[in-house]
Amino acid sequence: MKRILSGMRPTGRLHLGHLVGALDNWIKLQDEYECFFMVADWHALMSEYEDAHSIPEFVIDNVIDWLSVGIDPDKSTLFIQSQVPQHLELHMVFSCFTPLGWLQRCPTYKEQMREIKTRNLSTYGFLGYPVLQAADILLYKADKVPVGEDQLPHLELTREISRRFNSLYKRKIFSSPEAILTESPRLLGLDGRKMSKSYGNTINLCDSEDLIKKNIQNMFTDPQRIKLTDKGHPDICNVFSYYSLFIPKMKGQVYDWCTKASLGCTDCKKRLSFFIIDRLKPFHKRRQELIKDKPKIIKILEKGRQKATLIAAKTLKEAREAMGI
Amino acid sequence: MKRILSGMRPTGRLHLGHLVGALDNWIKLQDEYECFFMVADWHALMSEYEDAHSIPEFVIDNVIDWLSVGIDPDKSTLFIQSQVPQHLELHMVFSCFTPLGWLQRCPTYKEQMREIKTRNLSTYGFLGYPVLQAADILLYKADKVPVGEDQLPHLELTREISRRFNSLYKRKIFSSPEAILTESPRLLGLDGRKMSKSYGNTINLCDSEDLIKKNIQNMFTDPQRIKLTDKGHPDICNVFSYYSLFIPKMKGQVYDWCTKASLGCTDCKKRLSFFIIDRLKPFHKRRQELIKDKPKIIKILEKGRQKATLIAAKTLKEAREAMGI
Repeated sequence: MKRILSGMRPTGRLHLGHLVGALDNWIKLQDEYECFFMVADWHALMSEYEDAHSIPEFVIDNVIDWLSVGIDPDKSTLFIQSQVPQHLELHMVFSCFTPLGWLQRCPTYKEQMREIKTRNLSTYGFLGYPVLQAADILLYKADKVPVGEDQLPHLELTREISRRFNSLYKRKIFSSPEAILTESPRLLGLDGRKMSKSYGNTINLCDSEDLIKKNIQNMFTDPQRIKLTDKGHPDICNVFSYYSLFIPKMKGQVYDWCTKASLGCTDCKKRLSFFIIDRLKPFHKRRQELIKDKPKIIKILEKGRQKATLIAAKTLKEAREAMGI
Repeated sequence: MKRILSGMRPTGRLHLGHLVGALDNWIKLQDEYECFFMVADWHALMSEYEDAHSIPEFVIDNVIDWLSVGIDPDKSTLFIQSQVPQHLELHMVFSCFTPLGWLQRCPTYKEQMREIKTRNLSTYGFLGYPVLQAADILLYKADKVPVGEDQLPHLELTREISRRFNSLYKRKIFSSPEAILTESPRLLGLDGRKMSKSYGNTINLCDSEDLIKKNIQNMFTDPQRIKLTDKGHPDICNVFSYYSLFIPKMKGQVYDWCTKASLGCTDCKKRLSFFIIDRLKPFHKRRQELIKDKPKIIKILEKGRQKATLIAAKTLKEAREAMGI
């Protein structure tokens, strides 16, 4: 069975974007692959060092969400990055031979330096983000890594680091993991911008029914449809894109409602709320149970830590032997 | 009792330069301070990653030299950096908030980039050298750090990182360690250049008597003193500088030999060999005993590891609490 490593940074509550962008995919992958799902808390610290205290809360909260939506700890290994010390060891090993230029030229790094102005990311640690990611992936000798298109340069760096190690120490210790490109289109936020905690435009997986109803009711629709009898343009309507993504079988019907002005936007959104809430209901139920059973979460993560450590320690031993240290 | 941390990178055999530049000083410090002496093997890897396999040998070899010259494991704590995982953890924490500019502007970094052409040091790890050094020092809350003048910028960076942590997390966890400037003048190599393994101009602490005799006999003296009856110029003679450093009480006499041409260079060097060999003899004796007693070395380092880990873990716990992680 081929192996997969994927992870999330515990920097906030998980939202619908995580569900369609990653978790739905993870759930499917569990049956085809040996999956390692990692809470990347060191990676979180790189951007959230000024609010580090919120990380531990999100670690547990995110794992609860993973379990609620259907990540199965009997199939997959769930673990916390900082609990497996080999990540930092391999990170240090890779740091020693990773040319600065590889990191400075990394497109995601340059993009984030340009885009993110609210936090100071011009730090040593943030520059080394892809080195730690390479250690994460290669410690488990993952065959595949599910990534979005924007993460492809990081995976390419992982392969370069893997090749450089193997060539420096003349032994093929590390593999060349391949991408599984997640096809899901990017879900936009309630306001039509990218869905992101920092924009406050998310529907979180744990949001209450009332909050979801209220938030969806406030979504913008086609701005040209002013009166109920005006015909709408679903192709530019964010609400329609939610239908397409979450209730694809209703796409045709909603398209008709809109273009024929047979249903008003308010009612259209009311129905959307209904479906979204319906989709999240089973998650909420499991979430409520899990929140009450903290020892169960701890036990799952402890089992994951043990399994991850076993493999990570074995890989690191091989790497050390190849290096002669 | 105030605490000191100092370390050496296990990148080769120790030579007279280490003795007069550091070890003689360490031996004295043992009685005034609680000393932690660290074998900095992660730091060694940063420059020696292409020949990593020689590091483990030098780790043990250097510790044997430390013990031979008089580092006392009952007074001081001797440990190996990579055996205390907290160094890499604190290094990662510091990495997250250390501005790249601090490291890029560091004079030692710029100098080494300019000077060292034989190895590729334009790596991510090497840029972060002072961050790891800060973690080394601050983990033990060292009050003082014995350094050469060239290391002062690194210590200043350590203090900046310490202040930045304390200010970010609003708690005074880390101290501002001060330098103990070692006064010893720099010992030149056999050929008059800086004494360095890479120039092959060292007298190693473990060199045999024959080798020392041969090497000292080949030292250059005053090039203007051609015949035995020519008067020499001790101030420009490397052999005279060795006398000044190792047998200061003979300085006047040797000066006279030379300027009055009452002793030839060959004899002068023969006598120097005699004194150097005499100085190293007790080290060699202890070295021979220690080489045969590997379990003793292992035991000393294990005791050191335990003591270092105890303190490092306590500091890291405090740091984590301050950060809320």
